[in-house]
Amino acid sequence: MKATNFDGEKLQYITDYPKPKSEETLVKVSLAGICGTDLEILQGYMNYDGILGHEFVGVVEDSQNKELIGKRVVGEINVGCGKCSSCKTGLERHCPDRTVLGILNRNGAFAEYLSLPEKNLHVIPDSISDEQAVFIEPLAAAFEIKEQVKIKSDWNIAIIGDGRLAQLIAAVLSLSSKKIICFGKHQNKLSKLQKLGLQTKIGIDEIDEKKFDLVIEATGSNSGFDDAMRLIRPRGTVVLKSTIASKKNLDLTLTIINEITLVGSRCGLFSPAINALATGVISVENLIDSTFALEQYEKAFEKAKKSDSLKVLLKP
Amino acid sequence: MKATNFDGEKLQYITDYPKPKSEETLVKVSLAGICGTDLEILQGYMNYDGILGHEFVGVVEDSQNKELIGKRVVGEINVGCGKCSSCKTGLERHCPDRTVLGILNRNGAFAEYLSLPEKNLHVIPDSISDEQAVFIEPLAAAFEIKEQVKIKSDWNIAIIGDGRLAQLIAAVLSLSSKKIICFGKHQNKLSKLQKLGLQTKIGIDEIDEKKFDLVIEATGSNSGFDDAMRLIRPRGTVVLKSTIASKKNLDLTLTIINEITLVGSRCGLFSPAINALATGVISVENLIDSTFALEQYEKAFEKAKKSDSLKVLLKP
Repeated sequence: MKATNFDGEKLQYITDYPKPKSEETLVKVSLAGICGTDLEILQGYMNYDGILGHEFVGVVEDSQNKELIGKRVVGEINVGCGKCSSCKTGLERHCPDRTVLGILNRNGAFAEYLSLPEKNLHVIPDSISDEQAVFIEPLAAAFEIKEQVKIKSDWNIAIIGDGRLAQLIAAVLSLSSKKIICFGKHQNKLSKLQKLGLQTKIGIDEIDEKKFDLVIEATGSNSGFDDAMRLIRPRGTVVLKSTIASKKNLDLTLTIINEITLVGSRCGLFSPAINALATGVISVENLIDSTFALEQYEKAFEKAKKSDSLKVLLKP
Repeated sequence: MKATNFDGEKLQYITDYPKPKSEETLVKVSLAGICGTDLEILQGYMNYDGILGHEFVGVVEDSQNKELIGKRVVGEINVGCGKCSSCKTGLERHCPDRTVLGILNRNGAFAEYLSLPEKNLHVIPDSISDEQAVFIEPLAAAFEIKEQVKIKSDWNIAIIGDGRLAQLIAAVLSLSSKKIICFGKHQNKLSKLQKLGLQTKIGIDEIDEKKFDLVIEATGSNSGFDDAMRLIRPRGTVVLKSTIASKKNLDLTLTIINEITLVGSRCGLFSPAINALATGVISVENLIDSTFALEQYEKAFEKAKKSDSLKVLLKP
């Protein structure tokens, strides 16, 4: 099958990659999305090698559950052991022995086929298009914030970042609060947030400092943490959504002095994301930047790396 | 008056330092304690210069409230503006314009006299000795954890550190849970924790990893954060109690991947600490290492810096 494989050093397009053979359900990938995490992996994050990609929609080609065959599906990306305390409480995504699609010891979605356990798959309704469905995984990560933090309707909320994930987070949080300001750098991306009815700003002013009850760090850049510390009020909550912003020269002194709560946040459950798209409460189509055939992976990644790009899709 | 003043470079003993003159209540200091924060200030923390010291007990010598004169008092160390939203909600300790006794723009307790607003003072009952009362400020900082985190009785709790603050935290948390393990380095300090009925360990084993629902970082050293990340379970809570452990080469990647909640924690309200000492629920006398006259400040600080020392007191 066709696949883009990362060998730990470079990304390669392979036409005769072996088709997945396992007890798991076999999915023919219809469409896949390039995520910031994919770009980080190319820089060495997670020490991953294998087929990249974890945002996808596809059609079941083979499964032990024959009723699934031919169904359009998306898939939760963490595969737990099924036996540990995390797995038993519905937190497979924290299983210490988990594999993660395209991220950890499990081939991903930038290929003609992938396999996942049946329990990871969600059949999606006809009201959700392929182009929408490919956003379910990152949208679930945005909904994860609401599972972790009880958001009060009168909170002042700041979202730092205007990229792919920040846009989804803004859409999700705008369901809970109308007092949101998005701090970004790119006018084209901020204008999309304005269309959601959100206030946007380029740069932090003195008047913004210590003003916010909740700050979401979703920049994907190193400056995000310091900006969050400027914006958050004493005793406020900062949700950390982008791993790259967490790696160097961090100083938690202000976190302690101002008694800030920092909440690390990663993958979420798919159901709220599927529901939001199916009911039209959240729309994502305007976040698509461009779509490339899988063999054009180099152009696609080049595009995804540009700071003014939104979601770039791959079509195997 | 006698005072030990830090000029930003070195600590000096001054015999003719001007007595505080203000509208505030004048307190003659009976006994003061040396805290880890004092040692950090000598290394440049907070860019403070002035009289050091924020743990004290004393006797009111003059006050606009004449009923206070002659009373034995301790004092909350944060003095807010009284007008901002923090001050109006009882959070003077987060007022952006606050001064802090011996830490920020306000002379401290290593002197014959100090002044504080009347509202900061608590008259202490006769059942609390001076030697106990000097622990009220750090004990309040330990109780702050219980104000910030709702501790469940079945939680596994780890305390990292065996020093002055860690000992008080252990005493406070042992009121809420019997499933506590204290990870320390010094046998003499760990034996005091054992006397509280707590399990202690030197070094983290594989069996301890990701085992704890709540981890308190109270080491005062750089390794504390990494140790906390080893001990905490996915989705668990880490309380950050020591600022020095927060400054260098921190990596929050595991915080995000494992969706850890980090809670910065600083000063607390005095009432729970006073009650705990007055009722004998918590005892602190065994944490006193030694007591020095103020003029022996050099010996006292030398002693306090030693890694196997507990609380060193100064008597003006």
